[in-house]
Amino acid sequence: MSGNMLLVAVMAVAVAGSVMAFSSVKMQAGAQNEDKMVAGHSTGIYRTTGDVLDPEHDSRQLSNAVVDPDKYLREFNYGHVSKLPDGTTLREFTIVADDKRVMEVSPGVSYNVWTFNGTVPGPTIRATEGDLVRIHFVNNGTLPHTMHFHSIHAAEMDGAFDQVAPGGRFIYEFTAEPFGLHLYHCHVQPLEEHIAHGLYGAYIVDPKGPRPPADEMVMMMNGYDTDFDTENNFYTVNGIPFYYMHHPIQIEKNQSVRVYLVNILEFDQINNFHLHGNLFHLYRTGTSLTPDEYADMVTMSQGERAILEFTYKYPGQYMFHAHKTEFAEKGWTGAFLVRE
Amino acid sequence: MSGNMLLVAVMAVAVAGSVMAFSSVKMQAGAQNEDKMVAGHSTGIYRTTGDVLDPEHDSRQLSNAVVDPDKYLREFNYGHVSKLPDGTTLREFTIVADDKRVMEVSPGVSYNVWTFNGTVPGPTIRATEGDLVRIHFVNNGTLPHTMHFHSIHAAEMDGAFDQVAPGGRFIYEFTAEPFGLHLYHCHVQPLEEHIAHGLYGAYIVDPKGPRPPADEMVMMMNGYDTDFDTENNFYTVNGIPFYYMHHPIQIEKNQSVRVYLVNILEFDQINNFHLHGNLFHLYRTGTSLTPDEYADMVTMSQGERAILEFTYKYPGQYMFHAHKTEFAEKGWTGAFLVRE
Amino acid sequence: MSGNMLLVAVMAVAVAGSVMAFSSVKMQAGAQNEDKMVAGHSTGIYRTTGDVLDPEHDSRQLSNAVVDPDKYLREFNYGHVSKLPDGTTLREFTIVADDKRVMEVSPGVSYNVWTFNGTVPGPTIRATEGDLVRIHFVNNGTLPHTMHFHSIHAAEMDGAFDQVAPGGRFIYEFTAEPFGLHLYHCHVQPLEEHIAHGLYGAYIVDPKGPRPPADEMVMMMNGYDTDFDTENNFYTVNGIPFYYMHHPIQIEKNQSVRVYLVNILEFDQINNFHLHGNLFHLYRTGTSLTPDEYADMVTMSQGERAILEFTYKYPGQYMFHAHKTEFAEKGWTGAFLVRE
Ligand SMILES: [Cu+2]
Ligand SMILES: [Cu+2]
Ligand SMILES: [Cu+2]
Repeated sequence: MSGNMLLVAVMAVAVAGSVMAFSSVKMQAGAQNEDKMVAGHSTGIYRTTGDVLDPEHDSRQLSNAVVDPDKYLREFNYGHVSKLPDGTTLREFTIVADDKRVMEVSPGVSYNVWTFNGTVPGPTIRATEGDLVRIHFVNNGTLPHTMHFHSIHAAEMDGAFDQVAPGGRFIYEFTAEPFGLHLYHCHVQPLEEHIAHGLYGAYIVDPKGPRPPADEMVMMMNGYDTDFDTENNFYTVNGIPFYYMHHPIQIEKNQSVRVYLVNILEFDQINNFHLHGNLFHLYRTGTSLTPDEYADMVTMSQGERAILEFTYKYPGQYMFHAHKTEFAEKGWTGAFLVRE
Repeated sequence: MSGNMLLVAVMAVAVAGSVMAFSSVKMQAGAQNEDKMVAGHSTGIYRTTGDVLDPEHDSRQLSNAVVDPDKYLREFNYGHVSKLPDGTTLREFTIVADDKRVMEVSPGVSYNVWTFNGTVPGPTIRATEGDLVRIHFVNNGTLPHTMHFHSIHAAEMDGAFDQVAPGGRFIYEFTAEPFGLHLYHCHVQPLEEHIAHGLYGAYIVDPKGPRPPADEMVMMMNGYDTDFDTENNFYTVNGIPFYYMHHPIQIEKNQSVRVYLVNILEFDQINNFHLHGNLFHLYRTGTSLTPDEYADMVTMSQGERAILEFTYKYPGQYMFHAHKTEFAEKGWTGAFLVRE
Repeated sequence: MSGNMLLVAVMAVAVAGSVMAFSSVKMQAGAQNEDKMVAGHSTGIYRTTGDVLDPEHDSRQLSNAVVDPDKYLREFNYGHVSKLPDGTTLREFTIVADDKRVMEVSPGVSYNVWTFNGTVPGPTIRATEGDLVRIHFVNNGTLPHTMHFHSIHAAEMDGAFDQVAPGGRFIYEFTAEPFGLHLYHCHVQPLEEHIAHGLYGAYIVDPKGPRPPADEMVMMMNGYDTDFDTENNFYTVNGIPFYYMHHPIQIEKNQSVRVYLVNILEFDQINNFHLHGNLFHLYRTGTSLTPDEYADMVTMSQGERAILEFTYKYPGQYMFHAHKTEFAEKGWTGAFLVRE
């Protein structure tokens, strides 16, 4: 994952009348590498330049990336805030679902992403326990969609049975509870398809007595099956493969960092996270103020999430990545740059 | 998973001299769906009507289902109870293994199930910590079988080394310990085969000071590899795909529910459980009276289990299902109906 | 896994111009078995006699096994110990990486192992929290290699960005922290390859106030992909398939046992451990002196580890093995012999 990474061509090869895709990810390691081959059934072909998709800094004026990871990382959406007569804080959000966009997930690799508010992942929704959350949901797509929140709410606000037709609207409303790190995603069948295409986002409920101050950020672990063989071709944190390797996340020495980590990876049975040169306090689902573990790794299946708190005491650059090496080598790799 | 689910045909296709099976699960979602294809090596073909197997209510007079999920759900077997001279409670059970039955796991899909007492899963065995458990085991099958309990017991009661030959008998005897949610399964090689065919059940050991009152139920997560390609074609909780979607489990508002959740799924590396509209207190292995986590999801590999406690405060219908979407879409999906 | 296990031939079969390997593991179970087949892409062929590789006791004078599991099990390397002027304990180790050895992983199955100090797994490095650890690392291989520790250390000691060229040397130096069960592995790309070939070992940091006395041992869960299809053909604990089934680990009744359990398995998404006839106190990552759970199973993805403490109160032989049955049946199976 250092320097000269090279995402080599993916060839579609006709074998015995059927078409198979062999994806080949090769890394420069100063030595002879074996190509790792992953076979699947596909009618698609993709090629990528091997650069990293760079929404902000790219000289190619690239403007069609699925998300800007620098912006997404620390952007918390608290909604339009007002007070109800009984003093409760009301937070209103407008979320528009779409399924018509074709956006880049890696240089030269376009994918039909399905989006909440135009990006993958969708916006991070944040409230405090006890707030009333009201979501003005608009389905601007061609298929039915919904928003299903992992959290406590009434049955009719669950987004699993009541689909919103194309062109339709729905208002989701519920009290923010319990405090913790949750998520939302479309719950229309086939669920696999609606999730794999990008319809998800993080949902943070802060405890009434807030957590200690920290440099807070969201990390959403996902993937893209760009050749539709039910295996991911790209793995990412925050939407773009290898992004934070090329643009390390800058943090401060001796400053507490809090990562809201969500796994929404489709197709694979688990995902995991490993922090280099450090350990973190782990709060599973974020529903306790006492850490569950002190570790450098956490493993989660789809839909699980955890809050990670850590402080670096030495400056320098530290990787974080999936310890499932296949995922790391296909994009789920980043770095922190710890400044003095 | 609402309404018009359709399990579409599975075709055996000869490719280049070998035979491959493509299983296709299609769900009505009011929109164009891509068929999800899973390829495996097989000589078998199966078709299912798309209805749900319904042992009790089915107008087709179906009487050959692997289990009645309504009955299994809340049926705890406490054995024949007597007192030993020292005051210890003795609980005696008779368990008969068989491997000759062909039963339905989905409408029109017959499978050679291997059973304890004639059903998949086998009966839930329940005792209190400190009781003496005595199991009169009869192997009525054509292969050697055993009962291996996950719990504390003497080596000769372990069911791993000492096989019971066809026609043979064995008495397993041990003190019920520790309190928690355990399981039993046959431990004859190839283990994969004896488990995949259905030889397993839950084993609950209650603490001496009982848990608080609750609406208690067992959920055993399993699967069926009906075309013998070492990949599951059907996933279930309590033996029949989609059963509790069509017959939601009725629970009461503001009433504590306790789910004894066991994962015995073969072939796949993990299984998971997601509760809609709520969170549960999670007791891993059930060996503590203090919850480990407060979550809406739990992930377990084969042989792991957990107790889940929760209370719904709003009425209505709430799904629960694997958040591995493939498992959900192949049958591991159900619903609670919360009544006022 | 009892008695007459038979690892049957693996044939390379040309299908439609490509080469596929079918590995077939067959177990004697006194009954008709279905052969379990795993298909992959391969140019290799392997055969194994079905015996168990036995470095110490083998009449065939076998001397080329990847490791001696009896020796590895309880061998802790504390380094060359001296005192720094400020009273800190300095522990110095010399670790030599190599990638040229061809060693046996199962009888008749030779594999190009990449080794730290000549064995797979590499030596267990052990220190006490607060010690200064100094590792004289020599790359005696033909490829770049490093040592990456899961623990707290400075960026330049991380072994992820700074590769050590063939013939090169590097001194890794860091304070041993935090106490817990950690690991080290090479971090050169493709990571998959450097790990799969064997470059890893356990790293234990003891708390300053030591844990209670116990019969301590290390268990490293790994695998070998001997036909290079990115699927493991053999699974082991401590380097050699089935070894501890043929040479059970002898422990004492009523004596506390402490297992330092590390999962470094490549390719598969998880690994797990099940203890027969008993439960263990589980300390995830070993970073707390209070157990996290009381269980008979633990599931970990690659890079995770846990300390297990248990005491048998009945004598006899008890299995321990992966509850992923495929792994168990391909070698990840052992036994404890509990003596009076
Ligand atoms: Cu949708
Ligand atoms: Cu059996
Ligand atoms: Cu290396």
